[in-house]
Amino acid sequence: MKIVNVDSNIKPYRILLGNGIRYDISDYLQPQYSSILLISDTNVADLYADDIMQGLQGYDSVYLEVVHAGEQSKSVDIYYELLTKAIELGLDRHSLIIALGGGVIGDLAGFVAATYMRGIDYIQVPTTILAHDSSVGGKVAINHEQGKNLIGSFYPPSLVLFDTATLATLPTKEIRSGYAELIKEALIADEEWFEKLLSEPLARLNRDSLTEYLKKGIEIKARIIEKDEKELGIRKHLNLGHTLGHALETKLGYGVMTHGEAVAVGLLFAMHVSEAEFKINLPKEKLSRWLEENNYSFNLSIEMIDELIDLMKRDKKVIKQDIQMILLQNLGEPVIHSMDVTKMKDYLATFIAQISKSRK
Amino acid sequence: MKIVNVDSNIKPYRILLGNGIRYDISDYLQPQYSSILLISDTNVADLYADDIMQGLQGYDSVYLEVVHAGEQSKSVDIYYELLTKAIELGLDRHSLIIALGGGVIGDLAGFVAATYMRGIDYIQVPTTILAHDSSVGGKVAINHEQGKNLIGSFYPPSLVLFDTATLATLPTKEIRSGYAELIKEALIADEEWFEKLLSEPLARLNRDSLTEYLKKGIEIKARIIEKDEKELGIRKHLNLGHTLGHALETKLGYGVMTHGEAVAVGLLFAMHVSEAEFKINLPKEKLSRWLEENNYSFNLSIEMIDELIDLMKRDKKVIKQDIQMILLQNLGEPVIHSMDVTKMKDYLATFIAQISKSRK
Repeated sequence: MKIVNVDSNIKPYRILLGNGIRYDISDYLQPQYSSILLISDTNVADLYADDIMQGLQGYDSVYLEVVHAGEQSKSVDIYYELLTKAIELGLDRHSLIIALGGGVIGDLAGFVAATYMRGIDYIQVPTTILAHDSSVGGKVAINHEQGKNLIGSFYPPSLVLFDTATLATLPTKEIRSGYAELIKEALIADEEWFEKLLSEPLARLNRDSLTEYLKKGIEIKARIIEKDEKELGIRKHLNLGHTLGHALETKLGYGVMTHGEAVAVGLLFAMHVSEAEFKINLPKEKLSRWLEENNYSFNLSIEMIDELIDLMKRDKKVIKQDIQMILLQNLGEPVIHSMDVTKMKDYLATFIAQISKSRK
Repeated sequence: MKIVNVDSNIKPYRILLGNGIRYDISDYLQPQYSSILLISDTNVADLYADDIMQGLQGYDSVYLEVVHAGEQSKSVDIYYELLTKAIELGLDRHSLIIALGGGVIGDLAGFVAATYMRGIDYIQVPTTILAHDSSVGGKVAINHEQGKNLIGSFYPPSLVLFDTATLATLPTKEIRSGYAELIKEALIADEEWFEKLLSEPLARLNRDSLTEYLKKGIEIKARIIEKDEKELGIRKHLNLGHTLGHALETKLGYGVMTHGEAVAVGLLFAMHVSEAEFKINLPKEKLSRWLEENNYSFNLSIEMIDELIDLMKRDKKVIKQDIQMILLQNLGEPVIHSMDVTKMKDYLATFIAQISKSRK
């Protein structure tokens, strides 16, 4: 088992990574919880909920709530339904919520925990590669019709339990999605690692390498969170690729493109803008080729520009009316950059033209 | 102007009390906010929103949102509407929310601030006596159909600006309501002060005394919060009178009885149970008489017992299935006490019988 400690200012916690550790969950629960609510989705519950429930047999009151798989469940309606369930099941301030699933479940169940009776403990049990990112750092949220994650809190989990065995059942598109966040972390932190991540096609990825990559990604994130938990400064670097990525997801409707695929497009765009703004060369072509070879989709067309710009302006990262974006001065050297809307529009147009051409 | 500092672990802040200080709000705003949303209700906005808006003329983007006065506005629907407004008005992470009104507005606007883009700054500008309590301590919340304040966070304000001039326009029932929380604070902290609070009828209360009382109440609360912000221990003492109080409000429907009136009944009940459990004498009769003379209503009947017990079990303060209640070992000596439901039921029955008889 691998352990990463996060020395959070709000509440320190541990991330455990290991093959099959979901069976031993009760070994890692510290306090005596009065009851436990396991929240999962229709994809994951069938596969792993029983394993977790069995590990919790020592507790009196353990319940399971299953929501529909997909981003649509991060709505205010489902959020409220889960709160209602928690009340009806008699959860109190000494109860625990366990989020079993990908990022959607982690964000949703985490926000329920953050706001149920002004906050109860919760544990993240991520079951996707993508969730290595969302399960660490205490960002919990639901979506507003007008944008992703606009409603939420900073509310760290008590523990993250990452059973790498659960990744074996992931569909290819989920692997693709999660791997994009690993690439993002490498771009922020470490050129050598970036090269390594692109050195092989995804189809040949084995679990040992993946576990190693996940631990590395988590460590990069943990060190950033320790310095800036509330995202006032350097934590924003983790939004590399997300300004366009989020806008694209919202524009297409959640679920059309996976989060990671949208971020992958965003990463390319961030490199495109960085090259122009800083007059540098980045391995944009290399990343673009690798993404294409690994069947990442590229849903962008000139007609979308105005709407995407509007959505980017509405993003959390907007300060007044400039668009704030994370750029790279070099590999491993992210910076926060403010740009006016007209310039952004031009960049988006040249970017779409360039990529569309190279992909023909 | 009087100042109380709260050395919150989450974020230290100041409480300013003064006559007419609402006009000078911009003197007390520290950072440069990108935009400001003032949230108020239909009772308060007409009286004071303009004064605040005028004080904010130096800011580019200042907006006002008015919700219906009353507990009904602490709903998930109004909460979501306010978030939508905030998005549409372009509020970003560097925006400020100002809560202008009583406890409902403070709780609601505070919860919007706590969860908008994972938390932005907010200022409490309480306009009721009751809100001296709710505006301090960072408890923000909305109601669930099944109970008060079941959805919320601990999220301290950046500042509390208490303009005592606004209390002049309070209707008698609001004075009655707020004064009950002052009595609660005195029961928790200070026998002499308790005697003083009951020494005159409410009708003869003057502003100087009231300001002094408010400062004293706030200080008592501030010192408790500094020791236990998240209500894991002694902060629970402030719930004296609230176990039955909340149940009663929920049972009757929000707004039928004022919060303070419900708490006043709860205080009497806490004294009733304390006397029986600890075999002591408390000035229960004295308080009961004073409440009656000052026209506090007493909406309790034997038929309500089962439902009230159910509601108390559902209260945040329930641990497993015992009901947790704050009792007094003596004046100024609150304790947390767990009681089983049957015992609680008996106490409630004898209490109702006794009070009903004395009020005939």
